[in-house]
Amino acid sequence: MTIETAQVLIGSGWRDALGDSTFRAFDPDTGEACGDAFPVATEAEIEDAVRAAVAAAPALAAAAPETVAAFLERYADGIEREAGAIIALAHRETALPSVPRLSDNELPRTVCQLRQAAVAARERSWTQPVIDTRNGLRSSLGPLCKPVVVFGPNNFPLAYNAIAGSDFACAIAARSPVIAKVHPCHPGTSRALAKIALQAARDTGLPDGSVQMLYQLDQDAGLALCGDARIGAIGFTGSRAAGLALKAAADRAGIPFFGELSAVNPVVLLPGALAARGDDLAEEFLGSCLAGSGQMCTNPGVVIVPQGAAGDAFVAAAGTRFAAAAPVVVLSEAVLAGLEQGVQTLVGAGARVVAGEARRVAPGFRFTPTLLDVSADVFLQAPRALQTEAFGPVSLIVRSGNEAATFAIVGELDGSLTGSIHADAAEADVAERLAARLRPRVGRLNFNRMPTGVIVSPAMNHGGPYPSSTAPGFSAVGMPGAIRRFAQLQCYDRAPDGWLPAELTDANPHRVWRVVDGVPSRAPL
Amino acid sequence: MTIETAQVLIGSGWRDALGDSTFRAFDPDTGEACGDAFPVATEAEIEDAVRAAVAAAPALAAAAPETVAAFLERYADGIEREAGAIIALAHRETALPSVPRLSDNELPRTVCQLRQAAVAARERSWTQPVIDTRNGLRSSLGPLCKPVVVFGPNNFPLAYNAIAGSDFACAIAARSPVIAKVHPCHPGTSRALAKIALQAARDTGLPDGSVQMLYQLDQDAGLALCGDARIGAIGFTGSRAAGLALKAAADRAGIPFFGELSAVNPVVLLPGALAARGDDLAEEFLGSCLAGSGQMCTNPGVVIVPQGAAGDAFVAAAGTRFAAAAPVVVLSEAVLAGLEQGVQTLVGAGARVVAGEARRVAPGFRFTPTLLDVSADVFLQAPRALQTEAFGPVSLIVRSGNEAATFAIVGELDGSLTGSIHADAAEADVAERLAARLRPRVGRLNFNRMPTGVIVSPAMNHGGPYPSSTAPGFSAVGMPGAIRRFAQLQCYDRAPDGWLPAELTDANPHRVWRVVDGVPSRAPL
Repeated sequence: MTIETAQVLIGSGWRDALGDSTFRAFDPDTGEACGDAFPVATEAEIEDAVRAAVAAAPALAAAAPETVAAFLERYADGIEREAGAIIALAHRETALPSVPRLSDNELPRTVCQLRQAAVAARERSWTQPVIDTRNGLRSSLGPLCKPVVVFGPNNFPLAYNAIAGSDFACAIAARSPVIAKVHPCHPGTSRALAKIALQAARDTGLPDGSVQMLYQLDQDAGLALCGDARIGAIGFTGSRAAGLALKAAADRAGIPFFGELSAVNPVVLLPGALAARGDDLAEEFLGSCLAGSGQMCTNPGVVIVPQGAAGDAFVAAAGTRFAAAAPVVVLSEAVLAGLEQGVQTLVGAGARVVAGEARRVAPGFRFTPTLLDVSADVFLQAPRALQTEAFGPVSLIVRSGNEAATFAIVGELDGSLTGSIHADAAEADVAERLAARLRPRVGRLNFNRMPTGVIVSPAMNHGGPYPSSTAPGFSAVGMPGAIRRFAQLQCYDRAPDGWLPAELTDANPHRVWRVVDGVPSRAPL
Repeated sequence: MTIETAQVLIGSGWRDALGDSTFRAFDPDTGEACGDAFPVATEAEIEDAVRAAVAAAPALAAAAPETVAAFLERYADGIEREAGAIIALAHRETALPSVPRLSDNELPRTVCQLRQAAVAARERSWTQPVIDTRNGLRSSLGPLCKPVVVFGPNNFPLAYNAIAGSDFACAIAARSPVIAKVHPCHPGTSRALAKIALQAARDTGLPDGSVQMLYQLDQDAGLALCGDARIGAIGFTGSRAAGLALKAAADRAGIPFFGELSAVNPVVLLPGALAARGDDLAEEFLGSCLAGSGQMCTNPGVVIVPQGAAGDAFVAAAGTRFAAAAPVVVLSEAVLAGLEQGVQTLVGAGARVVAGEARRVAPGFRFTPTLLDVSADVFLQAPRALQTEAFGPVSLIVRSGNEAATFAIVGELDGSLTGSIHADAAEADVAERLAARLRPRVGRLNFNRMPTGVIVSPAMNHGGPYPSSTAPGFSAVGMPGAIRRFAQLQCYDRAPDGWLPAELTDANPHRVWRVVDGVPSRAPL
């Protein structure tokens, strides 16, 4: 059997790879390599991509918002048209269920996100125009006029794919060229998406070099790319270790780095909630923990459960479910190794395996769902180690003896994407005090719901305090806020109309909401 | 004569310094040390300050916006009441003119800025509330619940003072405790301000530890403070070298660092403008270059002037004025050394001294206003070196032979706070194309005006692309935008009313503008 080597999308289109180094995806269900060989980018290819993106940047920045909106919509349409093939590829490369995960959740979400970005590009509220008529000053957010590099994660082959997900859509909506570094777990899926993207870019007249894709980078090449002063900003979704290494390179070059890195997403179960619906909570917890085989950014990794009968019953009910759950297929050998390492760290710090075998299982990349627990005292002795993220179907229960212990545990929590409090009506007061304590430690605070399930909404925060993300003021998901990450503030001091973006002109032809002398208004001046 | 050692403002009030290491300010007019001895903070003092600020953070975050507004206003009132003494101190420590600079510009600006922060804290638009009723999601920006460290610069003893300026006002408006690291050029002024601040904090009931001040830090201590994970964010105004060292420490700890670092603030004079009002431009240029003895963040450091008769006349007119200008008093020995070093770098890269002697002059810290020039060709051979900031009364003229050369020069410009284009009506077209090229390289783009003079306005951008600032999406000046630097995005998922800040509740009691299901509105739900 001959393995084809895939072409790369650099500059104006597809071309043969320059280097000899290649890799293949694995079918996680079997553990066997599958599909074509995909090239590791050479230095020359990366330089070509950066040059093409730099060359495209001024033209794309000067393009009409309608142009990028049309591109985003045509791209979305194309993905829908080829949904069947894309889902089949993504399923083979990730083992995520075709139905409902890929077909009913992730693909529609991806398409919807691209379309929301198109709407946001057109309606322009992301630019936040501010006008001071007395002083002749006008400001708005505008394009960086530099390329944005996007690093995609392993766990969402479509909705966070560097060539199709939220960061991609946001950067294009802000009219920056994207150099997408897709995840090597799903190169075939990424190629299929990129083909549609390139065709859509051509059909709608985006400048050559607006959309490019690299399959894999050597570590040094990734660091060099993130430290290249020609880059305007970086969007990253992935592991903390990889993200922090790239962030350090970007930091040294003064390049804004928007990373979504890791989280244990603490869940607090209060006694009243447990008494009222402990068994339901056990079921919801299992569902949240095993969603996407546990490979969700918002996976509930730490659950604080009171001591006493209701807590014991919850742990027993959850444990029974974990023990009965079949091994789940995870994305890669690296995820398996991370799980083994994570469990080892947790156990080394004093956690105990309650249910599940905490081990890999043949065939393919399978791991047994595993529940651990630890006392509040032990947790408080090693709170950093016991917040180690075990990315996959693993959670840690912390048993709290009383309210003071619960508050102490919450006080030791690192920054997370989400935090959840389950409370009964009778314990609203303690829930409120606990919410105030948890609030600064999480990006999204949930009431009586488990953390998984990120709705694409303007009011979403998919982000959080460090180390869950690297920019606590921004969400990675949700238009128009997430677009603002890839923008710069541009002030005009008594400038003629011809210098101004439409949303700052007197006429305000697109009726953008803007703050004029302190008051929001859509009216022309 | 006995030199008193000043007390330090740590924790709940003034106390004796722990360490033996002290420094004194200098009167730049004479070069003599003046005033009391001020202590260099010890490790133990810094730790005490961080602990006090960490302890204050939750209470301050939970305080009513009215409380911080009342503090900011009482502080402003107190500064006004003691204006005479403060101006006398600031004048002695900086040699900046009491009238009009300190009395009519800087002090009123400082007071106005504190009051604008109070208004912004009260009206809450900085929180940018977003509500999605269909999905039960509500988001707004809220307090970091951690201390903010502010580093103040040498050149504005009041308006950017770490204990009274924009960063201070913004952090307090966002309800974060401030640890102010003031500049050692003006410790007496800073102490006078801090006394008023502390009294205002007590009078209005801010938690102990909300307002603290350190006079000086050893380099290692500064790096340790910026890398302390208990800190929520850092605001810095000062030199690029110091700022980047502190930023690196903050970056490693994942702490957002908002630095305003340096700029050459390019000014482009087009031929028509020069022909129409060359002599006026020479006068305006001199005024802008010598404002604050040249020690303005927005000082015009690089001026692009066409070759030919009108350009020659401008250079001659400007040169005559520079040559005739008296030596100016700069802030410190360090500024003098930086000027000598800067001029040496510029000359080493091919610039020529046109007017002025480029040297220090006795008594005190005096330097001769100096104008240099260089050809476009030489500039384009060493564009980095020829953009070296010579902080003080020094500017570089770049002579451009034609439009292509001007565009090439602009294409090599590093990020700056401002850029200015002077054009006649007949050259509107080239001015517009040039503006598009200059736009992504500067924070504020000026038409037919010189860059100095930063108006405190919601539409101001006092910030810019790296290396002029470290966060191109934010201004350091102007409410409410500048407040958002010191905030985190907080999402609530189906949370009870009691968990929500007032601006996210159904009632919206303060009638804050918010985006509800995509539409701006002040109405209750």
